Amino acid sequence: MYTLVHKDKNTGARAGVLATEHGNVETPVFMPVGTQATVKTLSPAELHEAGARIILGNTYHLYLRPGDELIKKAGGLHEFSQWDGPFLTDSGGYQVFSLAELRKITDQGVRFQSHIDGSYHFFTPESVIDIQRNLGTDIMMLLDECSPYPVEKKDAARAVRRTSDWARRSKIHVGQTAPPHGFKQAVFGIVQGGTYKDLRRASAESLIDIGFDGYAIGGLAVGEPKEHMMEICRWTADLLPKNQARYLMGVGTPEDIVNAIYLGVDMFDCVMPTRNARNGTLFTQNGKIVIKNSVYFDDFRPVDAECSCYTCRNFSRAYLRHLFKANEILGLRLATLHNIHFFMQIVTDARDHILHDDFASWKKSFLDRYNQKQGGYS
Amino acid sequence: MYTLVHKDKNTGARAGVLATEHGNVETPVFMPVGTQATVKTLSPAELHEAGARIILGNTYHLYLRPGDELIKKAGGLHEFSQWDGPFLTDSGGYQVFSLAELRKITDQGVRFQSHIDGSYHFFTPESVIDIQRNLGTDIMMLLDECSPYPVEKKDAARAVRRTSDWARRSKIHVGQTAPPHGFKQAVFGIVQGGTYKDLRRASAESLIDIGFDGYAIGGLAVGEPKEHMMEICRWTADLLPKNQARYLMGVGTPEDIVNAIYLGVDMFDCVMPTRNARNGTLFTQNGKIVIKNSVYFDDFRPVDAECSCYTCRNFSRAYLRHLFKANEILGLRLATLHNIHFFMQIVTDARDHILHDDFASWKKSFLDRYNQKQGGYS
Repeated sequence: MYTLVHKDKNTGARAGVLATEHGNVETPVFMPVGTQATVKTLSPAELHEAGARIILGNTYHLYLRPGDELIKKAGGLHEFSQWDGPFLTDSGGYQVFSLAELRKITDQGVRFQSHIDGSYHFFTPESVIDIQRNLGTDIMMLLDECSPYPVEKKDAARAVRRTSDWARRSKIHVGQTAPPHGFKQAVFGIVQGGTYKDLRRASAESLIDIGFDGYAIGGLAVGEPKEHMMEICRWTADLLPKNQARYLMGVGTPEDIVNAIYLGVDMFDCVMPTRNARNGTLFTQNGKIVIKNSVYFDDFRPVDAECSCYTCRNFSRAYLRHLFKANEILGLRLATLHNIHFFMQIVTDARDHILHDDFASWKKSFLDRYNQKQGGYS
Repeated sequence: MYTLVHKDKNTGARAGVLATEHGNVETPVFMPVGTQATVKTLSPAELHEAGARIILGNTYHLYLRPGDELIKKAGGLHEFSQWDGPFLTDSGGYQVFSLAELRKITDQGVRFQSHIDGSYHFFTPESVIDIQRNLGTDIMMLLDECSPYPVEKKDAARAVRRTSDWARRSKIHVGQTAPPHGFKQAVFGIVQGGTYKDLRRASAESLIDIGFDGYAIGGLAVGEPKEHMMEICRWTADLLPKNQARYLMGVGTPEDIVNAIYLGVDMFDCVMPTRNARNGTLFTQNGKIVIKNSVYFDDFRPVDAECSCYTCRNFSRAYLRHLFKANEILGLRLATLHNIHFFMQIVTDARDHILHDDFASWKKSFLDRYNQKQGGYS
């Protein structure tokens, strides 16, 4: 499903196209997070306007509420939410680790309590495929065991072994089940292994041996130092097939994204642009700004003078600050729209410069400017 | 500024056009409430799409936050909020009565404490004109004293006398001040008098004698029985000039609006469509529906099958219910968009039927259907 269009001459950065049943996705790509069948505060029309190409949904949340059976009955997640571009869903495993109560992992699967009502549930490699079949997403992720940081090697090794076993079961189950909504659903495996390079190699080789449509690098951005993250990202990306998509899960900041693109990663997702927006933190070419700060009281400039989003084309920092101070929902919307647009602009610009073989110099100038001064003054 | 286009042959209902510096407004018209320089949850583009023609802003709120001086510096409320249609602002008087702490009214004006930070402020007939000049609204409302319900006649009479005195001072002050944003600002007087017909007559005659661009019926919808409201509305509307606009402040339900149009009222405002939307109550031709109810769990029909709004064209009741249950902001948005569209459709349909001299029969069929069964099932 992935076509490598061009590799930058001087770095690992790749420009590609990911073919899905709901359209082609140019990579590198950032996927806004639409946890509960909506990217928080935005309409599908606004997602398109902000440049979104593919949305991530959370299997854990949708399974619990409103339930994958309801979404199946609605005709799938596209029909339910009216986002007509591609959807990728995670397996729910990571949310079980981070949100659910009283989780218990065995070789069979993971038992957990809902964070909503305390009810008991059990995810298996097979059941999360069934759920994602019901949701009707374009890319399904396998159930994996994500090691925390730090983790002892024997525990990381057990997680790798279990992730591989589950991947084998998943592959069989995918083959035995049909997509219910009339279009093919791709499947990505997830490489684990913590910060242990030999475990990462074993995990990647085992998954490639089973064979999936793409590969994710999991278990990073879980608290490890940034240099470990980037070193393991580089190591793992280099183990993955050149002709398939590479997805770094849960990453990240603008810096992380451009640095991982440099290493050959194609896909990203993170709640940062949406969550930060709702806290009033806005991204600009010149760094982040905290829109509630009093300095913006009578600042009638747009958030980012070089940005072409609806927010920046129409509204001032002073108006946005007012909306945030007055707890007006329009403020959350305009900030989210801008931040998503900003993240999409990063991957768009990255791709342009990969195609022109000058990704490294663009990355340097982007990061120099972005990090030079926090505050958004140009 | 008002042109009577056509009066329905069999009722008091009027079709007209209100000329403002930001465009002509067809009447009867409902004005969505944009208290803090935003109609809650909606963007200016969505307001246009929902059919909004003129927005009401609240002087009390904007004076306190972000302050009328800031909005003046921004270039006025239109430039600040990017709503390019007309704005009407109230005088702030009603909010002082309903929201502020420790208010004290004298013939000079009204002293009150901010509900935001407890700071002390003083509104006079002159100062609320100055504030509305700074805001740069198309229609300014005078400071009035709004009697509660019930009220003793001597108190209602004092409020009428004070409202007239303040109207005289306002008129003088309007003449002595220039609009700062380069366009003319109209001024409406407000008839008071509680449920006392002779006081209503005295109030109306006194204001007409001073002379304003239009007249509001104030002091209704403050707790009096519905039949008193409609009787006083009829009585007062009949006292007002035929060639000027009549505005029933703070009204109301769909029933109230069509009933008051019948009596010759041209303009309305109410928080009902926006506030109810955020509580999950949606208006349909067949009555209101409470979208969180479990009956909508797997109801894949639109909110109102006959509605042409963005919400009804794209989304199901089941999706809206999910958004509300999951506390997603998009639910508040889609509900608000629909409700505003519904209220605008009422006044649009009313006008069409006035122009065809069959307003009474349309009103009957609208109300019969709307009241027949609450629940939205057709």
